[in-house]
Amino acid sequence: MPDLRLLTSAASNDTLCDLPLKQLAVRTPPAAWNIRVSPAIALSRNPIRSTIASVTSTPPQTTKAPINLGLGDPTSYPLHPPPPTTSAAIITAVSGERSNGYVPGAGTTTARQAVADYHERWDRVQYDADDITLTHGVGQALDMLFSVLCPHSRIEQTNVLLPRPVFAQYPMLLANLGVEARFYDCIEENGWEADLDMLRSLVDERTRAIVVTNPSNPCGTNFSAKHISDILAVAEEWKVPIIADEIYGHITWSTPFTPLASLSNSVPILTLSGLSKRFLLPGWRVGWIALHDPLGVAGPIREGLAVWANRYFGPSSLTQAALPEILLTPDAWHAEVLAKVKLNAEIMTSSINQIPGISCVAPTGALYMLVRIDPLSFPEFTDDVDFCAALYREEAVFVLPGQCFEAVGYFRVVLASPAEIMREVGVRLAEFCARHRVL
Amino acid sequence: MPDLRLLTSAASNDTLCDLPLKQLAVRTPPAAWNIRVSPAIALSRNPIRSTIASVTSTPPQTTKAPINLGLGDPTSYPLHPPPPTTSAAIITAVSGERSNGYVPGAGTTTARQAVADYHERWDRVQYDADDITLTHGVGQALDMLFSVLCPHSRIEQTNVLLPRPVFAQYPMLLANLGVEARFYDCIEENGWEADLDMLRSLVDERTRAIVVTNPSNPCGTNFSAKHISDILAVAEEWKVPIIADEIYGHITWSTPFTPLASLSNSVPILTLSGLSKRFLLPGWRVGWIALHDPLGVAGPIREGLAVWANRYFGPSSLTQAALPEILLTPDAWHAEVLAKVKLNAEIMTSSINQIPGISCVAPTGALYMLVRIDPLSFPEFTDDVDFCAALYREEAVFVLPGQCFEAVGYFRVVLASPAEIMREVGVRLAEFCARHRVL
Repeated sequence: MPDLRLLTSAASNDTLCDLPLKQLAVRTPPAAWNIRVSPAIALSRNPIRSTIASVTSTPPQTTKAPINLGLGDPTSYPLHPPPPTTSAAIITAVSGERSNGYVPGAGTTTARQAVADYHERWDRVQYDADDITLTHGVGQALDMLFSVLCPHSRIEQTNVLLPRPVFAQYPMLLANLGVEARFYDCIEENGWEADLDMLRSLVDERTRAIVVTNPSNPCGTNFSAKHISDILAVAEEWKVPIIADEIYGHITWSTPFTPLASLSNSVPILTLSGLSKRFLLPGWRVGWIALHDPLGVAGPIREGLAVWANRYFGPSSLTQAALPEILLTPDAWHAEVLAKVKLNAEIMTSSINQIPGISCVAPTGALYMLVRIDPLSFPEFTDDVDFCAALYREEAVFVLPGQCFEAVGYFRVVLASPAEIMREVGVRLAEFCARHRVL
Repeated sequence: MPDLRLLTSAASNDTLCDLPLKQLAVRTPPAAWNIRVSPAIALSRNPIRSTIASVTSTPPQTTKAPINLGLGDPTSYPLHPPPPTTSAAIITAVSGERSNGYVPGAGTTTARQAVADYHERWDRVQYDADDITLTHGVGQALDMLFSVLCPHSRIEQTNVLLPRPVFAQYPMLLANLGVEARFYDCIEENGWEADLDMLRSLVDERTRAIVVTNPSNPCGTNFSAKHISDILAVAEEWKVPIIADEIYGHITWSTPFTPLASLSNSVPILTLSGLSKRFLLPGWRVGWIALHDPLGVAGPIREGLAVWANRYFGPSSLTQAALPEILLTPDAWHAEVLAKVKLNAEIMTSSINQIPGISCVAPTGALYMLVRIDPLSFPEFTDDVDFCAALYREEAVFVLPGQCFEAVGYFRVVLASPAEIMREVGVRLAEFCARHRVL
């Protein structure tokens, strides 16, 4: 057996080892510290942060209690207690002292099978444990998928199609990889449905995926089965896989929720979901990717996810141990939560559409709605950031301006607080608009 | 206020929008699916997996009970129960229903302050909460640091210096970013201390960091304060920050543990630690980066970490809530665990150095030791993989070959099982070597 150093030193130090010693000796150490970092940092800044800073630059000038409807966190106020099995499942896992060890990168087989069963039951799509990759929330799932699908821009320029209005994390993660984000519009007049002609016109041979967010953050839409089929037809025609961000899946009313995968007989669908929204556990960081590949054409993605999941490990072993029980949360609990969100949507829609100068499409899903600010009614405000800053200053109500979602001229309301807060927001909005509207 | 679509469509769709409609109309959709993925996937394959496949290709041909000393997971057998406060801290967090929401990307202030206090107490280095970034284990901390420090190779070719023998995740993550890994040898004859001349010779103006693993996986060393000072002198001379992987910090005996940051008055030190090893909770995925920057020259790294931590969120809110209490684990508990590891090290060192044909440096830290296979004693085996495969086949003992760590001609023993398993491994190794050694 050969000597350790002789064998191993050949590998990667060739250049320097070949230099004559004299040449090494004349290298001059730097005189001072000059630490440099990756230019990718600048591309990874969350654009929402500077907007928030603008909105909140002047603190509320009122004695009214502050109401923060900025973050989509249903535990903030909170909307509803967590699923009844949550505590018991975690307590069992931690007390047993058998769920503290390393688990496979993509998740334990038990947890992955539980997710497969969950989607089969709720989405009517067949999955195996092997189709599931557990992730640190949908955020990491997106980063993993974009990294697997898209080479870094300096290697090859690719693009991903995103809806607009958009959840800001998508373009931020793509920018960080140097991948082009192309936006297809969702049209308010059509209930925020996607502009299919525009979607089709944007696809080219460098398009690696179409992202569909349904139910939508920030639009609050739940696409009809017909519209889902129409989107699938574009993907099928151009042979592009779909990333279906369905973290708000089944948080819908008015019309039934149609999982993208349930209608696809050909297009590979990468469905993203997790415990954050429907199970009211956003801090737990348990998300997943479910791969539906009816024609078996997505092998490279499957392999890529398996490799990527092993770069470092997935979600906490404790939460993985508790996951199967939590996914069996009774339908009645989901119905209770849904009733509250639906009531919030009705309260806000009714309030807003009675206030001259602002308007909204009635939301049918997710935890959000977009409210349109009529520019002719409020010439005093230069844009939606200005409007929201005044609302914060005068009424102590914090909402995110549409600019955070590439929806200039709108603001987003989060529907995840108790109904009395929604009612109070309606009252304050009415007073604010009455005060500022030009008749 | 301007119209939504008019304002936003200018951003990134320019190229296509400028094309005449006719030109768009003649695009031809592809005839078949041809899904392509990033070439980075090939660079992200964990090289240990194929080696494990070679070692275990033939199952054990013995009735002896299998012993798996492959993975460094102290819960596998287990070595010792988890810290006494673990269960109570988690149960409090989950029962209170106030630890399920989103937390800041770098961690809650309370959890970060608890980590700062922990390092102050154990390492005698002063930290603020702002110096701490919580991560999904040290694996994600490494990925984050390499991403922050090193641009992708197609932008600028940089390098990072790694110890050899090496923990395989370092070069895998660097390869994925296209960053060059340069190896400085640790010399068995010097108790696996780093070859300082070689270290110095490898630094150049493209070196973004030196990784120091102390205590070492896989070597089982605990560097002396003198050796730590010598390494710091090289970093100071060449003005290169150090990534101090101290996940095995304080798991040391014989000599006291010297945290790298405790001796640095100038060099920025990025100390990596977490709950995985010293607290026996590897599955929880709670790690962190502690930045010690005595001269205040590492601002760009601090800012980069803050940005990167917000790409998606850090460890589970539940474990963050429990972290402060767990970090206050009584010294007596740590002493009990340490006594067991030390006993294991003594048992294995004594066993191995009594077996002709194999030998080892007595480990002084971490949960590992490297065992040298004398090539002249075992001409029957082509290399360490071949040796380990035979050991697995004949004695049902699984250990990782040195090739997994760029240490050809060695194998690694994990010291994290109960002492009786260590003794049994010693017996089986003796029988195996006696059977195969050439006199």
